Amino acid sequence: MYQSKLFYKTLKKAPKSVEAVSSALLTRAGFIDQAGAGSYSFLPLGLKVLKKIENIIREEMIAIEGQEILMPALTPKENWQKTGRWESFDVLFKLKGNNKKEYALAPTHEEIISPLAKKIILSYKDLPFYLFQIQTKFRDELRVKSGLLRTREFLMKDLYSFHTNQRDLENYYKKVTKAYLNIFKRCGIKTYKTLASGGSFSKYSHEYQTIAESGEDIIYICNNCQLAINREIKSGVRKCPDCNQSKFDKKKAVEVGNMFQLGDKYSLPFELKFQDKESKEKSVIMGCYGIGLGRLMAAVVENSHDNKGIIWPKEVSPFQVHLIQIGDNRKVKQSAQKVYKDLQNKGVEVLYDDRADKAPGEKFAEADLIGIPIRLVVSEKTLKNNCVEIKKREKTKVELVKINRISRKICCQKS
Amino acid sequence: MYQSKLFYKTLKKAPKSVEAVSSALLTRAGFIDQAGAGSYSFLPLGLKVLKKIENIIREEMIAIEGQEILMPALTPKENWQKTGRWESFDVLFKLKGNNKKEYALAPTHEEIISPLAKKIILSYKDLPFYLFQIQTKFRDELRVKSGLLRTREFLMKDLYSFHTNQRDLENYYKKVTKAYLNIFKRCGIKTYKTLASGGSFSKYSHEYQTIAESGEDIIYICNNCQLAINREIKSGVRKCPDCNQSKFDKKKAVEVGNMFQLGDKYSLPFELKFQDKESKEKSVIMGCYGIGLGRLMAAVVENSHDNKGIIWPKEVSPFQVHLIQIGDNRKVKQSAQKVYKDLQNKGVEVLYDDRADKAPGEKFAEADLIGIPIRLVVSEKTLKNNCVEIKKREKTKVELVKINRISRKICCQKS
Repeated sequence: MYQSKLFYKTLKKAPKSVEAVSSALLTRAGFIDQAGAGSYSFLPLGLKVLKKIENIIREEMIAIEGQEILMPALTPKENWQKTGRWESFDVLFKLKGNNKKEYALAPTHEEIISPLAKKIILSYKDLPFYLFQIQTKFRDELRVKSGLLRTREFLMKDLYSFHTNQRDLENYYKKVTKAYLNIFKRCGIKTYKTLASGGSFSKYSHEYQTIAESGEDIIYICNNCQLAINREIKSGVRKCPDCNQSKFDKKKAVEVGNMFQLGDKYSLPFELKFQDKESKEKSVIMGCYGIGLGRLMAAVVENSHDNKGIIWPKEVSPFQVHLIQIGDNRKVKQSAQKVYKDLQNKGVEVLYDDRADKAPGEKFAEADLIGIPIRLVVSEKTLKNNCVEIKKREKTKVELVKINRISRKICCQKS
Repeated sequence: MYQSKLFYKTLKKAPKSVEAVSSALLTRAGFIDQAGAGSYSFLPLGLKVLKKIENIIREEMIAIEGQEILMPALTPKENWQKTGRWESFDVLFKLKGNNKKEYALAPTHEEIISPLAKKIILSYKDLPFYLFQIQTKFRDELRVKSGLLRTREFLMKDLYSFHTNQRDLENYYKKVTKAYLNIFKRCGIKTYKTLASGGSFSKYSHEYQTIAESGEDIIYICNNCQLAINREIKSGVRKCPDCNQSKFDKKKAVEVGNMFQLGDKYSLPFELKFQDKESKEKSVIMGCYGIGLGRLMAAVVENSHDNKGIIWPKEVSPFQVHLIQIGDNRKVKQSAQKVYKDLQNKGVEVLYDDRADKAPGEKFAEADLIGIPIRLVVSEKTLKNNCVEIKKREKTKVELVKINRISRKICCQKS
């Protein structure tokens, strides 16, 4: 992509309304734009990151036999009345249409997927199965000052699992745990498995929390085994339930994923049943598993930045290489073009700063702010030795590499 | 994909509430499920088709320099008041949040993209540019009996173009026309370029209509040059504006795409301006271009089905091959498995009907209903000659092909 064509603008300062460090950096670097209180547009750079996160999540969901579907956001009042959540869900957006019909904008989809599953499940032979979607959720949050960490509208991956019994749910729950750890690792962040309140069907639910200065959660991390406890249940947990130690570090954190054992909480009101081998009717046992995509993107930035800007982990970076042309004479231009084409032909995603009207200092500062992992510079100076300068975003050391070796060097680093 | 694992169920009859032939077939074949009046869930088969359509559209938008973004659906009342559409847009869903703040669920995004563009555009050097998104729209339609052809929530590709002058808009408008024709051709449907009412900035807008028995539009197709006229303006158009002939065929049709020249209709209220070469301030000139994805999917089915079910065009079919195993003895099983693996290794998407508890007749009827273009059968009978039976969905002729030649045969047909 030619940077001269890219729809973006960097800012020296983020607007005052954007408080969290992650969203301030993402706004300043031209990844996102605040469209209203608690709602953001993803600009081309930001959407590229979001799509990479989406693809990582999709791959890991398919690897644990998840089948992708897409449910609507606009959902009938009756579904929410059936579970009592029309009244009890405090962040539910409600609206009334032209025909006086009332709807909720779904903040989660148990009320939609349970009646859907009921149409398909008849017998134990139809179980288990696992459905996920990557879809827009709505929650009428009162406080939305943390940028992408808490918005009224957000993309979420929600996975639902359906089982004949509790043991089968627990086995799958373990598989999802592994998939979650893969996802967070590929996104380049360290997460803590965190115990939180579990509702009625298990003692605890599990959250995946990552340390973040703008985080709204407080977690207590066991010094010995690294299991974390959410503040909301800490008063009832004096010793680590896993290793029995009692020394904890208190940290601000962001929840990037969660997992719940739902049991028959939703199968009962929707009469979601199956016939077992003895033709007896039983309730389907369910689990649900969420990851917020925008929040995960913000959490990556909370984890990975310095005073100059963002430092993208390789797998979620909008581009793999930022190629900067310094100067505008014919040789520099031709050489930069050649590097750009060579890399593209090798399948490397390159943002090419081809702008002739910007000073080198401004280009470097922007590159640091945007945070692509590898920076290449082509200038008269580097070309004296037929070279390109290469630098990693988080390092200060630069290296000169012969121009005809650069694409091979980068492709080797890739793998 | 093993059909025994696929989350779907076929129905002998569609529910009465699903009137259009396309949505009746898609419901019966297990592609979609009605979640409420005017809102549908896409099941795994349906989402596969939707994603293929999405990717075709994305490729064609990128080919005309479109940059992808993602804007929110929940949008502030103030934006809509600025253009007067808070009051005048009859299908606008309005809602009030916990904090008494009022929102519209965006049915289109001029009110959001114009203030966004204003933050980036300063000078003529920043123009032109082209932004698109593939995003969920909401419209409070009174009548929603045509299934996916008219829903209250739907995925839409909306492209917006920004120019310094009318001529530049008109040049780009032609490029979008070509991109649209590519999209509809790749989706396997014949469309008619149709004149419709243009608003204030051009005499006509353009729609792309496809003939459909469940269509809600009426178009008049010029017998001579095939240009079509929408009923809404037909009374004012007695002769074909392109070829001056006056013989027309009247047809029921579905609008699958549209294009508008917006001029400064939205740049004026949002003060979206640029400095020209002489440093004079001028209004940005805009165009907008929409395609409804779910509607396009339904239109494909309206165009391509028979009394047995859907006939998917190759590029949008959920799978390329439907492999059916008849019988359950070891040799049949092993041979079907081998064909499945061979095809998958060659990158062919296969739905493999591995179910042992279904009769052959039921399997064939389901395959016809689902509508994958190529059907393969492995049975004791075909294996007598070491063969697989191959049949195209729309043909009756079957052919026997040696089992070790089948993947090459299919891969050759692909290209």
